[in-house]
Amino acid sequence: MNLLANVMRGNIMESRHYGFIALADSSGRVLLSSGAPTDDFISFLRSSAKPLQAIPLIESGAADRYGLTDKELALACASHNGEPEHVETALGILRKAGLEPEYLRCGSDYPLYEAARDALLIQGIAPAPLFNNCSGKHAGMLLVCKHMGWELETYTEPDHPLQREIMGVVTEFSGLDAANIATGIDGCSVVCFGMSTARMATAFARLADAAYWEKQNKPQRAIAVRRIAAAMQAHSFMVGGTARSDTDLMNSAGSSKIFSKIGAEAVWCAGFPEHGIGLAFKIADGASRVHPAIMARILRQAHLLPEADIQKFEEVQLKPITNKRGTVVGEYLPMFNLQEWA
Amino acid sequence: MNLLANVMRGNIMESRHYGFIALADSSGRVLLSSGAPTDDFISFLRSSAKPLQAIPLIESGAADRYGLTDKELALACASHNGEPEHVETALGILRKAGLEPEYLRCGSDYPLYEAARDALLIQGIAPAPLFNNCSGKHAGMLLVCKHMGWELETYTEPDHPLQREIMGVVTEFSGLDAANIATGIDGCSVVCFGMSTARMATAFARLADAAYWEKQNKPQRAIAVRRIAAAMQAHSFMVGGTARSDTDLMNSAGSSKIFSKIGAEAVWCAGFPEHGIGLAFKIADGASRVHPAIMARILRQAHLLPEADIQKFEEVQLKPITNKRGTVVGEYLPMFNLQEWA
Repeated sequence: MNLLANVMRGNIMESRHYGFIALADSSGRVLLSSGAPTDDFISFLRSSAKPLQAIPLIESGAADRYGLTDKELALACASHNGEPEHVETALGILRKAGLEPEYLRCGSDYPLYEAARDALLIQGIAPAPLFNNCSGKHAGMLLVCKHMGWELETYTEPDHPLQREIMGVVTEFSGLDAANIATGIDGCSVVCFGMSTARMATAFARLADAAYWEKQNKPQRAIAVRRIAAAMQAHSFMVGGTARSDTDLMNSAGSSKIFSKIGAEAVWCAGFPEHGIGLAFKIADGASRVHPAIMARILRQAHLLPEADIQKFEEVQLKPITNKRGTVVGEYLPMFNLQEWA
Repeated sequence: MNLLANVMRGNIMESRHYGFIALADSSGRVLLSSGAPTDDFISFLRSSAKPLQAIPLIESGAADRYGLTDKELALACASHNGEPEHVETALGILRKAGLEPEYLRCGSDYPLYEAARDALLIQGIAPAPLFNNCSGKHAGMLLVCKHMGWELETYTEPDHPLQREIMGVVTEFSGLDAANIATGIDGCSVVCFGMSTARMATAFARLADAAYWEKQNKPQRAIAVRRIAAAMQAHSFMVGGTARSDTDLMNSAGSSKIFSKIGAEAVWCAGFPEHGIGLAFKIADGASRVHPAIMARILRQAHLLPEADIQKFEEVQLKPITNKRGTVVGEYLPMFNLQEWA
């Protein structure tokens, strides 16, 4: 664990954030890191697992059978804002398989995006599963179950065939045996997967590097990872929404360079298809406010994106700390240097 | 800095919070601690300074001149929820001196308390300075300025006589020279004060121990600290509001045992008049979600409150981590043991 960023108020370090960073290739080799992201510190992928959880949607044939568009596929990999376009798209996924929102077991919620939440509140509309940031993922899960003839009512349970299938996917992407993958219950009730930051980076390298799966003699999986990465890049708004870090990062870099997925408790994973590299970092305390400052420094130190792209990202995401009257009173200051892995 | 609490999801430590704890008496002696709360790590008191910032309100004679009630005095020491009773009381303070909300320079905001915020939103009422959680403090500051004949428009500036007066108070309570007190701009635009957790605990011990000021031959200050502590205890709802940690803690302990004031970036200070002891702790990353678990453990290990009071506090404030469907999926687990100061 290393000091990753300080929270400065004036010239005083008011608070500090520690954590772990790993860049890995699809062989599982760690290329650059900070904080020793070994198996000694396990945390959960949380929503960063969504692109992995979407693999069965393609491999089962459900996406093709129900004619899922890339936009809909991106929403299945999303922690969306609950803006109207997200909600309509989630509903559209369900209806392609003749399903309704009643089947969603992610739990009722208001949209993440405050303006969307407030608009519903003013209209007197109550929290609902469709507004939950995970509704796209759950809609995708239901499509797999419907296609496979699996029970729809219990799809969130760890021993349901869908969740067992997803666990198999996670073992193959992380390189860990199922016995070495910690599990817990995610905010949206499905299984969540615990591993080191290095293993998370490996999983995203295997999402970014389709050739890895061709070498493993799994051409269908190579197609699936290419399709997921391309869908997230082409429909970055679906993956997050207005002012969201994933969306802004993918928009700043432009298509094909990066796909990106944050998770709860300050995990952030990304894949770089042009390099075949995966990135993962975790703020140990679970707070994501220093995410943009840390991501920009990683991208710059590892030369993963052109400087112009990084500056575009900083312009939209890297905000100073202001008081209630808008005066700048502080900033988030990244403090680490990536090291070659020994 | 020590590990103070883990965030458990299932049986996995998903995130962790480090920090500093100090219990001190009014001489500045640290009695118990965790994480070595020395002058090497400075953070800001933020809103935990409010009882100190209210001292000139009493000592100047402004509180008496304008007939401030203890309820109003408690609001001057508050980070209030912006519930209707808080807002009305803040307005009442201003009007006692013939002032209006236009004089407040804390910045416009919506209430902290979500239900109060939502109620305003539904009525189409915009954010305003009176709803700002600091409006009681700012109203109190304006009363001092009005009483003293000081400029009203510039009362938030560091070189305004009021802010210089408050800096003098902070030096006497913390035991630090002004040159050794770090300063910054608080969220509500006034000066904020940086010092070690040990110095914060000392300041609260001197709020709790009126006899200290009598020994210093400052009988007026002894009266002021007694009045502030009593006002906060008797009007705990004013200090925070519905579901707030300060309010719930003071209510659980009952009158005279404790007065309590949180600050931004996860500072929490309290005074124990029956013991003449001050407590301060700071979560280094600035997140207050583990505050209740840590406070309960401190109170228990230091024998500062009866076990029944601590349990009452835990019942209202110590919540497990649940998912969106209400299932318990984790908990906040305190990890420290208080040590005698060497």
